Amino acid sequence: MSTLFSDRMQDVPRSFIREILKAAIDPDIISFAGGLPNRALFPVDELHEASEHVFKEQGRTVLQYSNSEGLIELRGWIADRYRLRHGIDISAEQILITSGSQQALDLIAKITLNDGDQVIMEEPGYLGAIQALSLYRPRFLPVGVSEAGLDIDGLQDCLERGSPKLMYMVPNFQNPTGITYPAANRLAVAELIKDTDTLLVEDDPYGELRFRGEDIGSFYHLLPDRTLLLGSFSKTVVPGFRLGWVAAPIALMDKLLIAKQATDLHTCNLTQAIITYYLKNSTIDDHIQNIRAVYGRQCDAMIAALKQAFPADVSFTRPDGGMFIWAQLPPPLTAMQFFEHALAHKALFVPGEPFYTTDAPRHSFRLNFSCVDEGTIATGIDRLAEAFRVLG
Amino acid sequence: MSTLFSDRMQDVPRSFIREILKAAIDPDIISFAGGLPNRALFPVDELHEASEHVFKEQGRTVLQYSNSEGLIELRGWIADRYRLRHGIDISAEQILITSGSQQALDLIAKITLNDGDQVIMEEPGYLGAIQALSLYRPRFLPVGVSEAGLDIDGLQDCLERGSPKLMYMVPNFQNPTGITYPAANRLAVAELIKDTDTLLVEDDPYGELRFRGEDIGSFYHLLPDRTLLLGSFSKTVVPGFRLGWVAAPIALMDKLLIAKQATDLHTCNLTQAIITYYLKNSTIDDHIQNIRAVYGRQCDAMIAALKQAFPADVSFTRPDGGMFIWAQLPPPLTAMQFFEHALAHKALFVPGEPFYTTDAPRHSFRLNFSCVDEGTIATGIDRLAEAFRVLG
Repeated sequence: MSTLFSDRMQDVPRSFIREILKAAIDPDIISFAGGLPNRALFPVDELHEASEHVFKEQGRTVLQYSNSEGLIELRGWIADRYRLRHGIDISAEQILITSGSQQALDLIAKITLNDGDQVIMEEPGYLGAIQALSLYRPRFLPVGVSEAGLDIDGLQDCLERGSPKLMYMVPNFQNPTGITYPAANRLAVAELIKDTDTLLVEDDPYGELRFRGEDIGSFYHLLPDRTLLLGSFSKTVVPGFRLGWVAAPIALMDKLLIAKQATDLHTCNLTQAIITYYLKNSTIDDHIQNIRAVYGRQCDAMIAALKQAFPADVSFTRPDGGMFIWAQLPPPLTAMQFFEHALAHKALFVPGEPFYTTDAPRHSFRLNFSCVDEGTIATGIDRLAEAFRVLG
Repeated sequence: MSTLFSDRMQDVPRSFIREILKAAIDPDIISFAGGLPNRALFPVDELHEASEHVFKEQGRTVLQYSNSEGLIELRGWIADRYRLRHGIDISAEQILITSGSQQALDLIAKITLNDGDQVIMEEPGYLGAIQALSLYRPRFLPVGVSEAGLDIDGLQDCLERGSPKLMYMVPNFQNPTGITYPAANRLAVAELIKDTDTLLVEDDPYGELRFRGEDIGSFYHLLPDRTLLLGSFSKTVVPGFRLGWVAAPIALMDKLLIAKQATDLHTCNLTQAIITYYLKNSTIDDHIQNIRAVYGRQCDAMIAALKQAFPADVSFTRPDGGMFIWAQLPPPLTAMQFFEHALAHKALFVPGEPFYTTDAPRHSFRLNFSCVDEGTIATGIDRLAEAFRVLG
């Protein structure tokens, strides 16, 4: 049956995380592999109350088919928040509700990419973006990410070599590294991009989860006509609703809408209504403040445990927010070698490989600190350290 | 910005219905244009109760990320129903939960179609399928549908001319015609397909909505290794949840799952859990029986009104189930000419054009009978008859 499948299916990497999670059925394993928010922080009671209200007040309406754009009240709330909290002038008409921001990636690729079109991708970069975009068979142009932000020379090279359609980035608390692009780096990136035909896809699922330092403005400030700004309620409210959005230049909205309609007609109506009621009747800022405080403590606990348990030649990032720490092993030790020993010691992480668009053994790996409590973090890092000692 | 868009966006037709619905903001208009179920039949109280239970018993679990396949309990329920009600041996492992069956079309196209691959499409056929598949740039091979079912000579021609990857059909109460393929026709279709490499996409959103006659078996009986069977809760429970599925040969599941994961990770968890509780704790067969009875009466009311109000040279189908009637105007009168007069008389339908993959003026149009009550149907058909008299 192999001729039955489309060529694009040869290009898409299988989710490494999915495979790992299958291996991690053992309940004794401590996993830092997933990208899950801490479920203890879910506002279950408030969403339950919102659900009550929606069923009673809007039952038949929210259960019917709806429009492809998404609920106008929800789009309006998002636009208001951009304006009031971030000083970004985006109208509700520029916002398309999607089935998680993952779907926004699919739709953006759908409306822009022909086979072989160039896409600038952070290296390392979000594996879900690599997966989503791979289905449209682009030629990835990797540009390195470090504590200094995006590699400006590398970016300039890419822009001189070709004419990329898209450039994908997570400038706040990046997945997988936890790095935040400094303000000056963003200015330099925008300066290089502004006279090109490249669209900037700014994926910002973690921007609200800053537990240290000051917010740095969105690329939307710098390149309003060329930025597609992706957001999500998965990290600030709950992921199970699958609610995200893309805020796009108005010239792109019509095509995005056609693609959305052809792909799944519209996003689930009930959860849109529930979250809208929740956002309008709860103190979302207090809730987010609480998430920040907890994740900050969990991040600090992980950093303290890493410093204590590992020798100095194992380095790691110190994020100001988000959910991930990125660690580097001393070569020639590879992340996959370490992974096998870690698994035997019942602790999990994601080796670096799936965050790259090229095949090569990696010495880096991703640790998630959002999902489990501080005590579990300490125990898990101890297990990793023990696995590391065995290798040494 | 036109070079920014992918070539595939040139091929996808804009939804005619969407445009029509925009024109139909006037609340005095009676619309037979949409494909909406009757919202008076939604089991609001039962779903509300199910939601209560889910929030209380599974709150944090259903609000977290989940697997891409969908809830195993829901997949199991669907598999049981296929086996117990339809005698179809499909396992839960063969079922992928999708964000409406519209998304199943997108995923199937994604994993199978290269640019220019041939797709056999019923003519006239479901406009949403034409839209979804168009984004993958196939070459459509139209095969006519009549009361006799699919045109067997036309199908044979297509199979001899090329090697279509997919064949799309709605054999039960087809959209837009309301026609059901007779059993002998299905046998003839299966006989032609069985030794080819063509996959049969059997879209069955209306199969449960039979209000006359006996069920005719799925193509899955005839071609179990070559049939992708699509189902939906949109017509039997509610559309606002966006819950559908594809039941596929096991050899295709792995690729479908990769595509699903790359496209939106997974379908909304909360609504999956709510509908699972509802299906297991309510009498869904009584509920469906009620829908059938109501739609049967509404269909009869529309047929009676059409017979009384229109001359004999306006013909129409007599469906045994589903939601649609297909009408034919006497040439040279086109559906678009009639549409303009109908709109002036404040009644709406969908002219035939978007149900075809080739451009030509059409003399046929689609009427929906599920959405409004019998009295409104009578008034609306009177308005259409008045518009027709003005033209004559």
